Amino acid sequence: MKVPKGVLSALKEEERFVLAVHVNPDGDAIGSALALSFALESLGKETLIYSKDPIPPQYTFLPGHEKIGTEIGNTDKNSPALILLDCNSPERAGLGKVWFRRSLVIDHHKTESDFGDLAWIESEAAATGMMVYSIIKTLGVKITREMAFSLYTAICIDTGTFRYLNTSAEVISVALDLVKSGAEPGTIASRLYETWREARFKLLIMTLNTLEIRSKVAMTHVTKEMMRRTGTNANDTENFSSIPRIMETVKISALFREVPGKAWKVSLRSKGEVDVACIAEKFGGGGHKNAAGFQIEGDLQPAKRALIATVRKCLVLK
Amino acid sequence: MKVPKGVLSALKEEERFVLAVHVNPDGDAIGSALALSFALESLGKETLIYSKDPIPPQYTFLPGHEKIGTEIGNTDKNSPALILLDCNSPERAGLGKVWFRRSLVIDHHKTESDFGDLAWIESEAAATGMMVYSIIKTLGVKITREMAFSLYTAICIDTGTFRYLNTSAEVISVALDLVKSGAEPGTIASRLYETWREARFKLLIMTLNTLEIRSKVAMTHVTKEMMRRTGTNANDTENFSSIPRIMETVKISALFREVPGKAWKVSLRSKGEVDVACIAEKFGGGGHKNAAGFQIEGDLQPAKRALIATVRKCLVLK
Repeated sequence: MKVPKGVLSALKEEERFVLAVHVNPDGDAIGSALALSFALESLGKETLIYSKDPIPPQYTFLPGHEKIGTEIGNTDKNSPALILLDCNSPERAGLGKVWFRRSLVIDHHKTESDFGDLAWIESEAAATGMMVYSIIKTLGVKITREMAFSLYTAICIDTGTFRYLNTSAEVISVALDLVKSGAEPGTIASRLYETWREARFKLLIMTLNTLEIRSKVAMTHVTKEMMRRTGTNANDTENFSSIPRIMETVKISALFREVPGKAWKVSLRSKGEVDVACIAEKFGGGGHKNAAGFQIEGDLQPAKRALIATVRKCLVLK
Repeated sequence: MKVPKGVLSALKEEERFVLAVHVNPDGDAIGSALALSFALESLGKETLIYSKDPIPPQYTFLPGHEKIGTEIGNTDKNSPALILLDCNSPERAGLGKVWFRRSLVIDHHKTESDFGDLAWIESEAAATGMMVYSIIKTLGVKITREMAFSLYTAICIDTGTFRYLNTSAEVISVALDLVKSGAEPGTIASRLYETWREARFKLLIMTLNTLEIRSKVAMTHVTKEMMRRTGTNANDTENFSSIPRIMETVKISALFREVPGKAWKVSLRSKGEVDVACIAEKFGGGGHKNAAGFQIEGDLQPAKRALIATVRKCLVLK
């Protein structure tokens, strides 16, 4: 991956940076920001990492996570440059009316905004962490153990730990270099995937018990009552919608989560070429091809029927 | 990893081989056998792969799987040499009273038998596939796409696709070479992990409903009746024992599967430094530090109590 010269120049020229990640930051956003922050600081620069939302607990094992702040302060005074990481618009980072003298974007999401004095968007990159790795190597900075942990985590999260189709030889080659630089695959995977609370696991079992498969669509649901009984909340349902995809016959998995106002938040996950963004859009929602969502009012059974009817109308599931 | 000279000599000297894997073969056994068979055949040798049990459906995407037979035939006539793969005793391979002129063992399991004219047991190897990779490279055989798929699968299965603590830089380095030789990580992961039959998923839900956590040990069970009701079999329970480990408080996960003769086959999975091989050995079983198993007679509740008592006696679970 070739880092644009302009990006390198900007990183070399500027002395103070605010690195901002998207709201509800994931491992790719957090790991990329931490690694880039360590690298810039090793060059004598000052950095501040801004995340509108707090860091989810599964990422607090990352060295330096305590550097991430949810306040940006007064940036006008010393005029830092802004770097948006793993997102490409100030809105996506939850940035208010803060002014920056200069702005950079480093992202692998297909661009939706024309923000940034300089935007490096590499939609083929498996993770923003892969781009930050290239930057650090090109800058000639030695990858420390801290950077290795952060970047390895970033890559794990966005490749499903080397399970998604974006796991190329380049991805594995970078992972190898990170392990040689101190990243510990088993330790990291354990921190990312084996730190569920028992209550969350119990909610998962209850949720799986609601499984119903119709027209290659696996439907599960979580009620407020189920969360109350297990002592869990909406955050605990993260990724529940992915699980039924392990069935060969299932092309779409839909999780219905009860929300206030007699409504359901529906999280859709699909396989391969099956596009659920278009399904979500029919209900006023949106998302990506394989991960989208929408909200629907009313009782559960009519909501499920509406989804199945729309899937049947819009998609041919082979 | 250094391949013993004796192993290399034997592979070069012999002309006909029977490669035998353990009963209920997993991806490491199957992948190792296929890759070694392809490599030996590329050297002009004849091979026959013997598996007492049929190949589980999730492995039938592997090129050459149709070469694996469940019959060994009359071996006396042309005197092939035996290679035991991913196991180290003829009993474990379900071999009856078949005679072999010469026998080799290539395995990474700790519990050793004294079988074999030559036994190469590398308990530090993450997978038997890693050992077979070393053999193929040392023999100077080019890794074909078929071998790459087989060995990558072997390594995936025994490292949890690079999530277990045995995922070393060496493992990732071999994975990289295999991907460069044609293995497709996303395709392989999808075939290994997203091709469950609905019946298997239903059995999983029933199994999770039996969850009981005592002394940081998560216990689940599968009865013959549960398999009958869902139309599943023992192979379908593969990896069920790993799932409860996602809970932070769980240090050991134990799956009790009912087997004929009023007995239970217990599959143990542990985290980090928790050694379940020593627990399994107390019951006459064996395995690796983080994955071991044993069989116990009698009713389920006494069997569970016996396990908990042994864990309490032998381990301090922090």
